[in-house]
Amino acid sequence: METTTLPVISRSPITNKEYPLPVNADDKKGIDSFIALHPGKKVVIVQGLGFVGSVMGLVVANALTEEYAVIGIDLPSASSFWKICSINEGVFPVLASDPKISQYYQRALQKKNYYATYDNYAFSQADVIIVDINLDVKKQSSFNDDVEDYHVDLAPFKKAINSIGQNCKPDVLVLVETTVPPGTSQKIVKPLLEENLQQRGLPVAELKVGHSYERVMPGPKYIDSIQNFYRVFAGTDDKSSDAIEKFLRTVIRTDEYPLTKLGNTNATEMAKVLENSFRAMNIAFMVEWSRFAEEAGVDIYEVVNAIRMRPTHKNIMLPGLGVGGYCLTKDPLLASWAKMNLFGSEGRLHESERGVHINDKMPLYAFEYLQSQYKDPLQGKKVLLLGVSYLNDVGDTRYTPVEGFYDCLETERAEIALHDPHVLYWEEKDVWVNRDLQELLQTDYDFIIITTGHKEYRNNAELIARLLQKPAAFIYDTIGVLTNEEIKALAAKHTVKVIGRGDL
Amino acid sequence: METTTLPVISRSPITNKEYPLPVNADDKKGIDSFIALHPGKKVVIVQGLGFVGSVMGLVVANALTEEYAVIGIDLPSASSFWKICSINEGVFPVLASDPKISQYYQRALQKKNYYATYDNYAFSQADVIIVDINLDVKKQSSFNDDVEDYHVDLAPFKKAINSIGQNCKPDVLVLVETTVPPGTSQKIVKPLLEENLQQRGLPVAELKVGHSYERVMPGPKYIDSIQNFYRVFAGTDDKSSDAIEKFLRTVIRTDEYPLTKLGNTNATEMAKVLENSFRAMNIAFMVEWSRFAEEAGVDIYEVVNAIRMRPTHKNIMLPGLGVGGYCLTKDPLLASWAKMNLFGSEGRLHESERGVHINDKMPLYAFEYLQSQYKDPLQGKKVLLLGVSYLNDVGDTRYTPVEGFYDCLETERAEIALHDPHVLYWEEKDVWVNRDLQELLQTDYDFIIITTGHKEYRNNAELIARLLQKPAAFIYDTIGVLTNEEIKALAAKHTVKVIGRGDL
Repeated sequence: METTTLPVISRSPITNKEYPLPVNADDKKGIDSFIALHPGKKVVIVQGLGFVGSVMGLVVANALTEEYAVIGIDLPSASSFWKICSINEGVFPVLASDPKISQYYQRALQKKNYYATYDNYAFSQADVIIVDINLDVKKQSSFNDDVEDYHVDLAPFKKAINSIGQNCKPDVLVLVETTVPPGTSQKIVKPLLEENLQQRGLPVAELKVGHSYERVMPGPKYIDSIQNFYRVFAGTDDKSSDAIEKFLRTVIRTDEYPLTKLGNTNATEMAKVLENSFRAMNIAFMVEWSRFAEEAGVDIYEVVNAIRMRPTHKNIMLPGLGVGGYCLTKDPLLASWAKMNLFGSEGRLHESERGVHINDKMPLYAFEYLQSQYKDPLQGKKVLLLGVSYLNDVGDTRYTPVEGFYDCLETERAEIALHDPHVLYWEEKDVWVNRDLQELLQTDYDFIIITTGHKEYRNNAELIARLLQKPAAFIYDTIGVLTNEEIKALAAKHTVKVIGRGDL
Repeated sequence: METTTLPVISRSPITNKEYPLPVNADDKKGIDSFIALHPGKKVVIVQGLGFVGSVMGLVVANALTEEYAVIGIDLPSASSFWKICSINEGVFPVLASDPKISQYYQRALQKKNYYATYDNYAFSQADVIIVDINLDVKKQSSFNDDVEDYHVDLAPFKKAINSIGQNCKPDVLVLVETTVPPGTSQKIVKPLLEENLQQRGLPVAELKVGHSYERVMPGPKYIDSIQNFYRVFAGTDDKSSDAIEKFLRTVIRTDEYPLTKLGNTNATEMAKVLENSFRAMNIAFMVEWSRFAEEAGVDIYEVVNAIRMRPTHKNIMLPGLGVGGYCLTKDPLLASWAKMNLFGSEGRLHESERGVHINDKMPLYAFEYLQSQYKDPLQGKKVLLLGVSYLNDVGDTRYTPVEGFYDCLETERAEIALHDPHVLYWEEKDVWVNRDLQELLQTDYDFIIITTGHKEYRNNAELIARLLQKPAAFIYDTIGVLTNEEIKALAAKHTVKVIGRGDL
């Protein structure tokens, strides 16, 4: 799908509707008439309409103790413009199993207090600006072979901050929610905004900047993971932290989930990446143990469940195909980068980088294990992958570990069919995904491989019965979804292998 | 204290009483008359009277649904013989803050059902033998410089198993509680016992062998950590696992804490070392983050406490002086050794070995940080160390990280005074410890260093006031015991440094 010309349309993967990209970025009229609908209300802008920003906008539009006029802003690009149009046309741009998403969106539609735009003019009208844009890490090699060879490009982030500084009021509150390298609010965001204000001949004394990270979990508790959960925040100075606290109290159930105020924004920024690094490390730690279990004839799932009986060990992780999603795959690297580049340290965060490295290699291991168990070439073999999302019961393919595994199969020229109950279209690979398992199972496969732990594949007696009617295949559970009884039943006909389970 | 002659006495560190070592190992008369007191009762032997075995003996002597005659057995050596004598003389050989220890011991004294001996003849009388001896790992270099250079010596463990096999009944149940390299029960204990029985012309068909690990926490819940806690077990065959289950149900509150039965003893052995490796890794992971916090002017304790608000992140660890105790310092190495030596794997458990390596180096880092902050030579400086135990509020100096730190100070020829409310005598260093902080504080020190997080050093306004009366000193909190308010107060007079806290 490479093209040398710029895209001119943006297509909604939800409605399939196509939107021509705007030729100029002028939406002043739209913004002004939206604001005119809400006299006396504070204007809150959410910058970035992705998995966090679009839903954060919903939450602010349904604030608890104050009525806000909410504007979501994103770039008029092929990947974002449809979201802007969709919000304004009455179709929320995120599919989620949480029923509150649609409740909140319907309420916002009734109140007409959630507008979306691409025009930076909006910033000039804002009392509060919440920054929810991405800040990416680019890994240079496939499967992150060189643990130290990654690149943090702050340019798009800085550009977004500049677009605020070039337009905002001098007393605006800019609240960064993006996961950033520790030090960013203090050393990058605040100076950039001040520089812009000074260039515009405006005072900087009343500017307020701080950081508070979300802990969004897309899925059945999407809204609650923002509104009904613990929050950590800090300002770059006292007036900023006071303003943030006041704002968050209007939006979040702070009575049940008290706010945690930290000493400075370096601390909140570090807390976020440390949280995710901790989880990434706990997964990486399990990788070598699941190999050991295979060698020792031990069922690692049984072992981990026994260990989880201890309250202090409840969060020990299970093995699997790999680690995906937007956070765990990059946050430790953001931290290590910041240590060296924003604080001038000579030492990297070696262990945290290694954790990412180990996790990134997991799909490769899963593939090599398959090859070690099935010696014939894979060329032309029919393979069914069950699940492309990185997370159980959610349709999110960002940095899914299934991608690396899929790439390996493609390189060997296997014929791959894809199933996922939550994914229609796999954006990163530009392929369609079938949601109808019954239909897929009319074909015979050489390999049936469970690659995501969706509930459709768990304790599904019908699925097991159906598989037992199929010709002998190689069934490979990379997640540990199959029970010992199911494995025993399937093994009567098929070859069955499970990562982390010694042959039972 | 090196000597070329064998020791002839064993001294109790509790009563200071000295016991001449027995010239031969004959205690048949004592054993027989003890058993004669308990006709019809099953005889349970606990092999090894250390921190686990001596208290496990107490728990079995106070079993819930059956009356046992319990014999503790250990070697007639300088370090163990006094424990044998002490148990028989009415002084329990373990000091602990748990009041149940003394209640249980008093009950056993009244029932006269807990006897101790050094004579292997006892094994011939046993229905159940619980193995609670040590299995050590020797690290070859100071601070574990070479991560792969350690040595697992199974000889003493095998010798102890042989002493059982040479004496036991052919239908005995041998329950290993020792933390062993995964594979040990199946590949070492069972074959050794069978070999011995065969050499004695006895059948092996009724021998029962299995593994169930304790999760003892010396401290205020010592007994409960054995009797009122989740247990994992497996037998080397079905009759063994049935026998173990039946026995454990008589001893442990399995109604409240259901037993977890695993598929084989490799799995239970792996579960134990994995539990401890998980914890060791979580500590090691925090090491580099506490350095980063220092560089970024962040208080890592504040950050970690914010993260702990998440139920999934409750067990993220705080930084400190290092990792001590008998388990976390060696269990990951036992596992890696077993992977290579009992299962013939080519790969080590690299990450788990690295975790131990990082933790072992922590006291060295703490010392280097001290040197970096205090440039003058330490020779002749007066240093007070607050705490020598490895664990808060417990007197346990086994593999305490204070030792490495103490060694560094000694190498620099500092003058060291030691305080610990729970330690009278530091066995590994052969030095006495002062339990009277008031008395110690009559001296002036150049350095006052908090090395264990005992509650005596926490929120102790009197201690802070007393320190403020002293001449200016370098106060160094390696644990994070001091609050920000205390640091601020102390900093008015002293230099105050805390590991993991950027200067506040």
